[in-house]
Amino acid sequence: MKAEEQIAALGLTLPPAPPRGGVYKPVVVVGGIAYVSGHGPYLGEGEYITGRVGDDLDLAQGNEAARQTGLALLATLRSELGSLDRVKRVVKLLGMVNSTPDFQEHPKVINGCSELFGQVWGEDAGIGARSAVGMGSLPGNIAVEIEGIFELH
Amino acid sequence: MKAEEQIAALGLTLPPAPPRGGVYKPVVVVGGIAYVSGHGPYLGEGEYITGRVGDDLDLAQGNEAARQTGLALLATLRSELGSLDRVKRVVKLLGMVNSTPDFQEHPKVINGCSELFGQVWGEDAGIGARSAVGMGSLPGNIAVEIEGIFELH
Amino acid sequence: MKAEEQIAALGLTLPPAPPRGGVYKPVVVVGGIAYVSGHGPYLGEGEYITGRVGDDLDLAQGNEAARQTGLALLATLRSELGSLDRVKRVVKLLGMVNSTPDFQEHPKVINGCSELFGQVWGEDAGIGARSAVGMGSLPGNIAVEIEGIFELH
Repeated sequence: MKAEEQIAALGLTLPPAPPRGGVYKPVVVVGGIAYVSGHGPYLGEGEYITGRVGDDLDLAQGNEAARQTGLALLATLRSELGSLDRVKRVVKLLGMVNSTPDFQEHPKVINGCSELFGQVWGEDAGIGARSAVGMGSLPGNIAVEIEGIFELH
Repeated sequence: MKAEEQIAALGLTLPPAPPRGGVYKPVVVVGGIAYVSGHGPYLGEGEYITGRVGDDLDLAQGNEAARQTGLALLATLRSELGSLDRVKRVVKLLGMVNSTPDFQEHPKVINGCSELFGQVWGEDAGIGARSAVGMGSLPGNIAVEIEGIFELH
Repeated sequence: MKAEEQIAALGLTLPPAPPRGGVYKPVVVVGGIAYVSGHGPYLGEGEYITGRVGDDLDLAQGNEAARQTGLALLATLRSELGSLDRVKRVVKLLGMVNSTPDFQEHPKVINGCSELFGQVWGEDAGIGARSAVGMGSLPGNIAVEIEGIFELH
């Protein structure tokens, strides 16, 4: 099943593509590779999931924030590329968690995005290389920021 | 107007290309893509803008540090490629701010570099995808570190 | 001398390729470029070098952790590609140090990995572009996490 059919079959509702928060492009395509800017867990109407994982948010809430960030990335990809079916595979994600200094479960947080992409594009094409790490701070105190590289058809 | 002409028209003075601070190359080109190492706000003569944004430095000073980092990136690109006119477009920047845990304005800091690149290469080619995030610490306590990916002619 | 011959000549012992710690692939190859997931200083049998550089670990121990991370990256590359001789050059590393807020020697830490790669693939092909930065926290409190981009033959 193709990605757009999967979105429908899974009953997923994407937020609007997030508004730009600075001087950058949401996506730049070069040589069949789409470089996608860092996204946060956008809920629509200017609202994001905020807070520090390990303090304001627990692991499950952090995972949910990463999944919401994945939905925002999908919204931007659809908006910029016309269709999620143009993505051939997820190449790499950099998952950045707004976490306390003693937090240790960053991979389980970012899995919220990776599992979503596995559902949308399939276990092979939807799962790429990845790093999952803890940041000192993130813009607007968002809980998670994820940037990605995608191969296009 | 081409990038080198713009540099002259804007009256920009580039610092020397920063000295290498470890075991790496300033730029590696593969398949027409230049991968540029993380740069700091180099002022020349071994001096960098240092300090933590949100404590030692305010937002305007952080933005100025990002602009200076952009000038250092331009100096390295010119030194390594021969001319800034060889850059076809900015593909992606990762803007890393040495900031306090409660700092939230990372995009406005990194805009100092992005706006400079928009002036040098134009609003389309000079503006790429981007992430702007807060680090726990940076080498030598520099205020900002930015790495980039550039498409070449 | 080729990389696999160098490994033997240097008497290097690679750890097993680290077990996957989340929903990702260790390596994704697209267009002759291998994107390698963030790796930690894996010792085998589920054990990693852990601790914060500047507090639990000193600079020399951090450098050793980066070297061990390099060995883990080599193990994964050999396991996924069949041979380290398939790597044409190191394109870029992102070296992330689990460090105290006042730590300033991140490049000297990550040199532990870069010098290893220079021995394995040679001073030109083994040394790429790089950023070396300090994180707020890392998964499982590992001392260092490094991700990489490699050009393949």
